[in-house]
Amino acid sequence: MGNGTAIFSQLDKARGGNMRIKVINPNTSDEMTRSIHQVATAYASLGTEIVTTHPTVGPVSIESFYDEYQAIPQVLAEIKRNEEDFDAFVLACWGDPGTDAVREMVPQPVVGIAEASMYAANAIAPRWSVVTTLRRSHHMVEAVVKKTGLAEHCASVRCIDLPVLACEEDSDAVIAGLVQVGRQALEIDGAEAIILGCAGMGGMAAYISQQLSVPCVDPVGAGVRFAELLVALRLQTSKYMTYRPPEAKLFH
Amino acid sequence: MGNGTAIFSQLDKARGGNMRIKVINPNTSDEMTRSIHQVATAYASLGTEIVTTHPTVGPVSIESFYDEYQAIPQVLAEIKRNEEDFDAFVLACWGDPGTDAVREMVPQPVVGIAEASMYAANAIAPRWSVVTTLRRSHHMVEAVVKKTGLAEHCASVRCIDLPVLACEEDSDAVIAGLVQVGRQALEIDGAEAIILGCAGMGGMAAYISQQLSVPCVDPVGAGVRFAELLVALRLQTSKYMTYRPPEAKLFH
Amino acid sequence: MGNGTAIFSQLDKARGGNMRIKVINPNTSDEMTRSIHQVATAYASLGTEIVTTHPTVGPVSIESFYDEYQAIPQVLAEIKRNEEDFDAFVLACWGDPGTDAVREMVPQPVVGIAEASMYAANAIAPRWSVVTTLRRSHHMVEAVVKKTGLAEHCASVRCIDLPVLACEEDSDAVIAGLVQVGRQALEIDGAEAIILGCAGMGGMAAYISQQLSVPCVDPVGAGVRFAELLVALRLQTSKYMTYRPPEAKLFH
Amino acid sequence: MGNGTAIFSQLDKARGGNMRIKVINPNTSDEMTRSIHQVATAYASLGTEIVTTHPTVGPVSIESFYDEYQAIPQVLAEIKRNEEDFDAFVLACWGDPGTDAVREMVPQPVVGIAEASMYAANAIAPRWSVVTTLRRSHHMVEAVVKKTGLAEHCASVRCIDLPVLACEEDSDAVIAGLVQVGRQALEIDGAEAIILGCAGMGGMAAYISQQLSVPCVDPVGAGVRFAELLVALRLQTSKYMTYRPPEAKLFH
Amino acid sequence: MGNGTAIFSQLDKARGGNMRIKVINPNTSDEMTRSIHQVATAYASLGTEIVTTHPTVGPVSIESFYDEYQAIPQVLAEIKRNEEDFDAFVLACWGDPGTDAVREMVPQPVVGIAEASMYAANAIAPRWSVVTTLRRSHHMVEAVVKKTGLAEHCASVRCIDLPVLACEEDSDAVIAGLVQVGRQALEIDGAEAIILGCAGMGGMAAYISQQLSVPCVDPVGAGVRFAELLVALRLQTSKYMTYRPPEAKLFH
Amino acid sequence: MGNGTAIFSQLDKARGGNMRIKVINPNTSDEMTRSIHQVATAYASLGTEIVTTHPTVGPVSIESFYDEYQAIPQVLAEIKRNEEDFDAFVLACWGDPGTDAVREMVPQPVVGIAEASMYAANAIAPRWSVVTTLRRSHHMVEAVVKKTGLAEHCASVRCIDLPVLACEEDSDAVIAGLVQVGRQALEIDGAEAIILGCAGMGGMAAYISQQLSVPCVDPVGAGVRFAELLVALRLQTSKYMTYRPPEAKLFH
Repeated sequence: MGNGTAIFSQLDKARGGNMRIKVINPNTSDEMTRSIHQVATAYASLGTEIVTTHPTVGPVSIESFYDEYQAIPQVLAEIKRNEEDFDAFVLACWGDPGTDAVREMVPQPVVGIAEASMYAANAIAPRWSVVTTLRRSHHMVEAVVKKTGLAEHCASVRCIDLPVLACEEDSDAVIAGLVQVGRQALEIDGAEAIILGCAGMGGMAAYISQQLSVPCVDPVGAGVRFAELLVALRLQTSKYMTYRPPEAKLFH
Repeated sequence: MGNGTAIFSQLDKARGGNMRIKVINPNTSDEMTRSIHQVATAYASLGTEIVTTHPTVGPVSIESFYDEYQAIPQVLAEIKRNEEDFDAFVLACWGDPGTDAVREMVPQPVVGIAEASMYAANAIAPRWSVVTTLRRSHHMVEAVVKKTGLAEHCASVRCIDLPVLACEEDSDAVIAGLVQVGRQALEIDGAEAIILGCAGMGGMAAYISQQLSVPCVDPVGAGVRFAELLVALRLQTSKYMTYRPPEAKLFH
Repeated sequence: MGNGTAIFSQLDKARGGNMRIKVINPNTSDEMTRSIHQVATAYASLGTEIVTTHPTVGPVSIESFYDEYQAIPQVLAEIKRNEEDFDAFVLACWGDPGTDAVREMVPQPVVGIAEASMYAANAIAPRWSVVTTLRRSHHMVEAVVKKTGLAEHCASVRCIDLPVLACEEDSDAVIAGLVQVGRQALEIDGAEAIILGCAGMGGMAAYISQQLSVPCVDPVGAGVRFAELLVALRLQTSKYMTYRPPEAKLFH
Repeated sequence: MGNGTAIFSQLDKARGGNMRIKVINPNTSDEMTRSIHQVATAYASLGTEIVTTHPTVGPVSIESFYDEYQAIPQVLAEIKRNEEDFDAFVLACWGDPGTDAVREMVPQPVVGIAEASMYAANAIAPRWSVVTTLRRSHHMVEAVVKKTGLAEHCASVRCIDLPVLACEEDSDAVIAGLVQVGRQALEIDGAEAIILGCAGMGGMAAYISQQLSVPCVDPVGAGVRFAELLVALRLQTSKYMTYRPPEAKLFH
Repeated sequence: MGNGTAIFSQLDKARGGNMRIKVINPNTSDEMTRSIHQVATAYASLGTEIVTTHPTVGPVSIESFYDEYQAIPQVLAEIKRNEEDFDAFVLACWGDPGTDAVREMVPQPVVGIAEASMYAANAIAPRWSVVTTLRRSHHMVEAVVKKTGLAEHCASVRCIDLPVLACEEDSDAVIAGLVQVGRQALEIDGAEAIILGCAGMGGMAAYISQQLSVPCVDPVGAGVRFAELLVALRLQTSKYMTYRPPEAKLFH
Repeated sequence: MGNGTAIFSQLDKARGGNMRIKVINPNTSDEMTRSIHQVATAYASLGTEIVTTHPTVGPVSIESFYDEYQAIPQVLAEIKRNEEDFDAFVLACWGDPGTDAVREMVPQPVVGIAEASMYAANAIAPRWSVVTTLRRSHHMVEAVVKKTGLAEHCASVRCIDLPVLACEEDSDAVIAGLVQVGRQALEIDGAEAIILGCAGMGGMAAYISQQLSVPCVDPVGAGVRFAELLVALRLQTSKYMTYRPPEAKLFH
């Protein structure tokens, strides 16, 4: 090996910002997809092109394991369309549905907005809480936290008990609920920062942060910027073992 | 709250890339500081200005708890110089020395390169190993992994048993050692990606990744891009409790 | 409440053994489904009727996260067919794919063969190992162990690196491999019992147990008997919160 | 190895149900032993013969570590009587006292009702609570949960603060207390199912389940059916290392 | 409250050293009891009187759970004899058998030599290994480590596979074995100090420490000095809940 | 090796009590140093000489990570003064600041009062709480508990929200606060003993123990006696790997 010159020259593309990131909303709500796109674009670097899509088939929101499993194959199909055109993929649902399978399918880096938002929160507070929609999702959210490995930093998961689509249809009620449970997280659970636990909550972080006087993490923004980070570091998913391409086989 | 417009307009500065990030090499080696600056600049976004410094006083390398504790007050003094001029701080030593104290001192986000590189690795492999310098640092590195919360994802810590400054003075030996212990991490320990566990190993990631056929994370690059992520998300350190400014008090 | 009489009288059906258990092979291999049925029937109580099916659509074997996510919606559809006719459901794949969603869908108890086989092993040995097929599945198997909560009792996961369908097509090679890695689990990893980590390994437990002189758990047998246990205890899935029926919603 | 035929033929005895299971109540209360026998018989398969005994010497209830250690040698003596006549042993006290020693003494499978009831609860709810008698036993119950490995699934341990023998002498008060603390477990602690944490609570599960509208696990029933499971799977305790027969030695 | 004077004056007895500590060897070996007494006396403070006893009935050594449970009631009886005459109790077997029950029985502090030796090791090395006798005890020793809470600091448990009484009858072989497995612990497992995991290994620590060039903890010495610590701090066992005196009840 | 005689004769010095222990108060408060010295002397064995000092430079109290890192290099300098004159060192601040570095610097055993007080509490109660000063220190205290490995035994950390120096200047308010939060720890959190989480709380343990009717651990007393224990066992810090002397190197 010579010196670092060769390596650094490879970075030109990244620095120049010609990245293209595909953000996939795993549910089929047009309105939420538009909202996610707006947020993703707002948080992305200037040179990053954001393409936001959703599957044509599947549940209009993801609130149960049932919904999630129905959505994932459609997300995988969405990944396959023009997969070579993108530098990274972001799955915009706070359950990181199917990230493991996408990592098998493509070499490009794959980011779930849940993991990205937890990393961001971890850097600005010793403990944080996730605030999310229906109470039934409490266990699903905890499972994502555990899988990511950061359960010791999670002060609590708190739910406003409104459905996912309320983020679009009744955002005032959602925001009021988030402020309320966020306050409980700070005063009762020991949280010192808040993560918005739903892709539909885009654009709410600044207001909630202001109301609670603590930082509030927008998960879509975190997902997009974390995808940029991986592209800039020239990191692709390891194909050493677990994330090898799926075996070619018969599908009846 | 109105709609998302106000929030998104605040993002302009971030998108325009007028960030200034101060990267602090906690040791006093000029040569390593230059190397860190070269790497940090190479990985940063085009619009990001990188200022890399080191304390004027302190150990020339950090290899023990003793070295680390001697260095930290100097790092803190370095933070205080022109602290308002920067959007974020990166501590460029794979022990994240003093990050907790810096988070108390300033409102801007503070990133340790260890945590940033672990987050990056976590997104591209189910388990990864940290390869580092002296064997005596094995326990220190494990302690950082545990503190970050990601011990379950860490397959192993492997050491080449060469000192930190060998990264500058005998980089060929360092690289050969990293390839060797990296291979052991993959074949014996169950790692599927490699993290370079020393700020002095900048510029080595691409070559090692190529030799081992797995992704290899440059920690300084990860640190800089992760700092950008936090700035872009308008996140500052929570001052709710733990990271409040230190109490004003008598210092004899 | 009166006394125990009423409760005990309710148990008559269970004791009489008029149970009907539906065993679902999540992949679409006819041959493996027949093998699973043979094993399930052999281990079931005399009064238990076993119906074994597989989805008509989906991957012929499950060896990756991709395969698993493609299979799950088909498994869920298979659950819905004549769901009232059964007292319990067993998912016969050592990844327990989709059990969470099935628990939402139906009131009857749902058993994954992975969890059932770990419970059985836990009662006969302080630590046990799971032996399975492809090396790529190592991480998937570990994830199931962690989710079940018994990681401290798992000495290791060892793979023979043969595909799932080899269990049907080249069972001699599979058995030889299992004996070999099983011995390594005992001698190197500290295991004291072996779990067969694939539904396709039915009928192999007795031979392997004899070769290794330690108990060997057949996962399909464990799954069926554990489902009987839940039915006999009149236990149905809790609908208190997490496993409530999925919200009715639009599926595009 | 030929095919599965030989193995399956061995299963005839199990399927035919000629099992004999010895249930040992570790305390010396005749009344509780009769109650346990009634419950064990009610939940057992038709073909299973239940023999329920208690030591002739020892404490009349087990509520402290002191009681437990006094009882265990008597339980071990009870195991030795006609040990060849039984296919499995069930220890009917929710502390699983002495299971490790019994596993050393005999080859037949040994089941503690605590572990069996936790496995059952784990299959029907993501988190469950154990409701038990005296508050002083809180720590003992937690220790059993930890030893079994399922602490992450245990939402709480709640005590009615009535003694063990109240289950026989004042069952109305016990049931009222269980409903009360069970409700707290659901509403405050995040439990979604209830485990009765005392062998003396047999016959109460159905009523409590009905009052709380969540499943409630009878531990004696779970223990008997889990013992049947192990016998049906031809599993005996591993004698590879930990559970070898105790060394022959001098007892003064 | 006035000032500290009253408190400090209470400490006179402790400082004057008029402590009486009862060391109980849970097995019935006279020879081992004499050895334990010699070691306990050698390590105790000058002003501390050591009384070492063993039960008159029970196993001559403790090597299995069976042995342990047979021994414990005899240990409890031994505690009761002249219990008021002592300031603290030490249980001299590296399984800390029955400590929980003794804590219920008496107000004086109770020390297991296992816990005391782990605390000592924890202060002088980041990770340590326990070296002990028969391989069958491996799991028992691990269980004690977990119960104490220090599993993360335990690098390994290594066994010489010689029986407990070999410590008295063939101490040369025992010492040779300990040096051998201790070296493996250092070179393979990552230990940096050694704990002698058997009360019969008294007097061997200095030689083994010298051979391995790392500190080696004598558990009986640690137990006695830790008991002195508790007495000097005027600490008695908390009777708040778990360790209340056992309920008075009928013993058949 | 001959027999134990040689080893035991080495113990004479320890038994004779000619120990000298240096207690370092890491802050620069004269008043607190005098208080610590009074407590340390009161709890030490008669034959132990206590020398208590504080750095001449540094913060007058330690309440933040910033304070802690400013204090540590001064503590290290204080260690170096006449280091050969002492048999052990005790760091008298409930954050155990710099213990790792001191273990590198000197061969003598080094004790933090936090770890010593947790070991003592662990022997007298199944779970205990730490009561301390400012609420901002909550996270720091939890971090020390985790590092020591005893988090499962820690019921809670509770703060009176008074500064460290209030222990000297307004001890009545401190004591009232400790009784109040200690009661909450017992009644709400499940603690059964209390640890005073500040070196400035010396002399308060007996009164608080009396008020709460549970044992209360004085950390300075625990530290001194635990240091005596290590000296008596002839244990020095392992220099095998992690705690080797720091590399000689240039300090600019």
